[in-house]
Amino acid sequence: MLENLKEEVYKANMDLVKHGLVIFTWGNVSGIDREKGLVVIKPSGVDYDVMKPEDMVVVDLQGNIVEGNLKPSSDTPTHLAIYRAWPEVGGVVHTHSTFATGWSQAGLDIPNIGTTHADYFHEAIPCTADMTEEEVNGAYELETGNVIIKRFEGMNPMHTPGVLVKNHGPFAWGKDPHDAVHNAVVMEQVAKMASIAFAANPNLTMNPLLVEKHFNRKHGPNAYYGQK
Amino acid sequence: MLENLKEEVYKANMDLVKHGLVIFTWGNVSGIDREKGLVVIKPSGVDYDVMKPEDMVVVDLQGNIVEGNLKPSSDTPTHLAIYRAWPEVGGVVHTHSTFATGWSQAGLDIPNIGTTHADYFHEAIPCTADMTEEEVNGAYELETGNVIIKRFEGMNPMHTPGVLVKNHGPFAWGKDPHDAVHNAVVMEQVAKMASIAFAANPNLTMNPLLVEKHFNRKHGPNAYYGQK
Amino acid sequence: MLENLKEEVYKANMDLVKHGLVIFTWGNVSGIDREKGLVVIKPSGVDYDVMKPEDMVVVDLQGNIVEGNLKPSSDTPTHLAIYRAWPEVGGVVHTHSTFATGWSQAGLDIPNIGTTHADYFHEAIPCTADMTEEEVNGAYELETGNVIIKRFEGMNPMHTPGVLVKNHGPFAWGKDPHDAVHNAVVMEQVAKMASIAFAANPNLTMNPLLVEKHFNRKHGPNAYYGQK
Amino acid sequence: MLENLKEEVYKANMDLVKHGLVIFTWGNVSGIDREKGLVVIKPSGVDYDVMKPEDMVVVDLQGNIVEGNLKPSSDTPTHLAIYRAWPEVGGVVHTHSTFATGWSQAGLDIPNIGTTHADYFHEAIPCTADMTEEEVNGAYELETGNVIIKRFEGMNPMHTPGVLVKNHGPFAWGKDPHDAVHNAVVMEQVAKMASIAFAANPNLTMNPLLVEKHFNRKHGPNAYYGQK
Repeated sequence: MLENLKEEVYKANMDLVKHGLVIFTWGNVSGIDREKGLVVIKPSGVDYDVMKPEDMVVVDLQGNIVEGNLKPSSDTPTHLAIYRAWPEVGGVVHTHSTFATGWSQAGLDIPNIGTTHADYFHEAIPCTADMTEEEVNGAYELETGNVIIKRFEGMNPMHTPGVLVKNHGPFAWGKDPHDAVHNAVVMEQVAKMASIAFAANPNLTMNPLLVEKHFNRKHGPNAYYGQK
Repeated sequence: MLENLKEEVYKANMDLVKHGLVIFTWGNVSGIDREKGLVVIKPSGVDYDVMKPEDMVVVDLQGNIVEGNLKPSSDTPTHLAIYRAWPEVGGVVHTHSTFATGWSQAGLDIPNIGTTHADYFHEAIPCTADMTEEEVNGAYELETGNVIIKRFEGMNPMHTPGVLVKNHGPFAWGKDPHDAVHNAVVMEQVAKMASIAFAANPNLTMNPLLVEKHFNRKHGPNAYYGQK
Repeated sequence: MLENLKEEVYKANMDLVKHGLVIFTWGNVSGIDREKGLVVIKPSGVDYDVMKPEDMVVVDLQGNIVEGNLKPSSDTPTHLAIYRAWPEVGGVVHTHSTFATGWSQAGLDIPNIGTTHADYFHEAIPCTADMTEEEVNGAYELETGNVIIKRFEGMNPMHTPGVLVKNHGPFAWGKDPHDAVHNAVVMEQVAKMASIAFAANPNLTMNPLLVEKHFNRKHGPNAYYGQK
Repeated sequence: MLENLKEEVYKANMDLVKHGLVIFTWGNVSGIDREKGLVVIKPSGVDYDVMKPEDMVVVDLQGNIVEGNLKPSSDTPTHLAIYRAWPEVGGVVHTHSTFATGWSQAGLDIPNIGTTHADYFHEAIPCTADMTEEEVNGAYELETGNVIIKRFEGMNPMHTPGVLVKNHGPFAWGKDPHDAVHNAVVMEQVAKMASIAFAANPNLTMNPLLVEKHFNRKHGPNAYYGQK
């Protein structure tokens, strides 16, 4: 079942390697079939070298395995929480990409200080709060999803499609698995550029007009970037 | 029409990938036929993997499409402003290369602190001023060209063939598209070296004699670098 | 003799190159056959390009060459000290990988500030003390092993399978040579992420709950990461 | 003439590309035949892609072209000054490798803070003084050689086979062209590790005992690293 989505999710997982976002098994991508309410996700701890499309696991939105011989990614409950909270999300990705993880460990939002950022993320890429003892020792991966969702209260997750989980690493999402990976690549690049920029000038300033201009040039009602 | 220039501009765009200056569609190169007054430029938002020489778009210096089925790069008005202002420019390139973009976000000129810089850029690589509300919300890409040109008042753009647009990224130019890309690669390298140098010694000093010596060794009337 | 282990140690040495942890001959991996009490180790100063499985040297735990035409790695006494001290260790690796060596030169422990670290290393990755004149001018490589072992007093070396030798570089270990190399790759990555994180925020904080959670998720009695 | 040395110098130049020390034409290697008193050096400004062994230029120690259709590297007088001053030098290399150039621009010696450094360079890798107006506007490339030689007064250039020319970049040397390139690669690596180490701990300390131990383990009368 869902062979096309499995192929798509498999390919998106392999793209993490191609873009240098993961080593070993440090990443996972999922995609959702909204009509069926089923999610396809990478199996847990399987090497990218040997992984095949048919290894992808199908789960429902409550995390029950619907198809597959392997255990789904241990981060599955985080992915599902995001899908349940935000109906426009079609793909979710988690990595430990180097610079985004560095900023997660720093516990800081990545401020919107350039058009590379604004082309994809309207706001600062937020960093979540410290998780409590109940959250960590309870349903940890589910609660990770919950702290992400809480952090986005009052924000539009499709306009800022990524987050840093404090002391952990980035999650990104998009309209489909490919788009989610694209946003994860951009987040890593934006994190690196921010490191370079603040090292050069800790007192740098952003022109807020550029945020609106660039975000809307690509994503607003009158977007004019790219081919129609 | 202009098949040779299309090939040249196509190749220069692909060289951005080869030199690691762009990911996705984050860059564009153009070239001009000064006799005909026509510019060849990359189409907007087309992946480098699938792009072909015949996809290049031909526009006149006012931005009218003369040939091509695709929309030209959304940065076309910036390229055209540069061609109109500076008759010696034969090629223009824009990227979001990592270190040069970091310095753009820092809002700082890259000071001339080494012979690598001085071999290609006589002055500091300048960073433009903040754009005003009228500029950003008006003909934004044209105005981006205008702030670049304004920043070069009193400077020779062929002696310092690159600029950082504040909170955005680098533009470079040269006598042809290949030369413009060459200068963009150097700018990225020079930005990285400056980050390393200032991290090691925030109070570093430049010997100004070396600026004149190295620039003129390559570009002065008695240049003696390379084969004749 | 020990042809399988030689192949395994050879492959683990080549993986150092593949993972970008070594240039030239700057690294060595060994593995032990605990039943026979014999260690297989890379020969000293042999280029990775020309090295073959049969070049691996077999030594006993006192360092006597049991088989092989080449001299074993000059770091052999350090490896042997580790094998003698910690019976669970099945493989040892030494590199001068860039970021881990940078932290060794800084003379600092790499603090546990993220789940990437906690997934593999329970504690901070410790940095050894300065070696004394007697240690350096005596049986230096053996004493290097001894300062490592001393640094782990009161710690579980299998829960924190790596160390920084001050002003030198990292050693890592694991249940076999492959696992030791895996931990060496993680240590380099963790060192890089720590550099990025502290540059962004020198006052960052770690949520200690995450250390226990992530370490135990992978290594505790109720580990649930990966396939069973 | 000197076909073997041409091949050797050609290969050493190509190794600069392989090791990532140069882009474009930013580097040059030479080698000397001490019996004949002739130096073989890369031609000036020729792309590595098209360069062939027979393009190498033969000059005498006064810089007269003895064989070759192309102009020798513009840095030839610097190479020759080094060969004339230090009879043990068999190969010289100049690059603008990124981190070593960053430290040259910082105007700082790279202090000996680790065994990676001490394995190859006994002292700090020194940075030259500012050049005077007479030096820069006179026989500049010859004077570059002279400031290098002056900086090594009281030092053994074979024990510290590299230098940073202030605001310019690194020169390295060795017993032959291959060895010189090897030292240039190490210098770049050592510069990068120093950047990482000082960023992590500006007050780091070096154990001076390790300098003597490591340098002599590889280069002293009782060296025991590698195969005999």
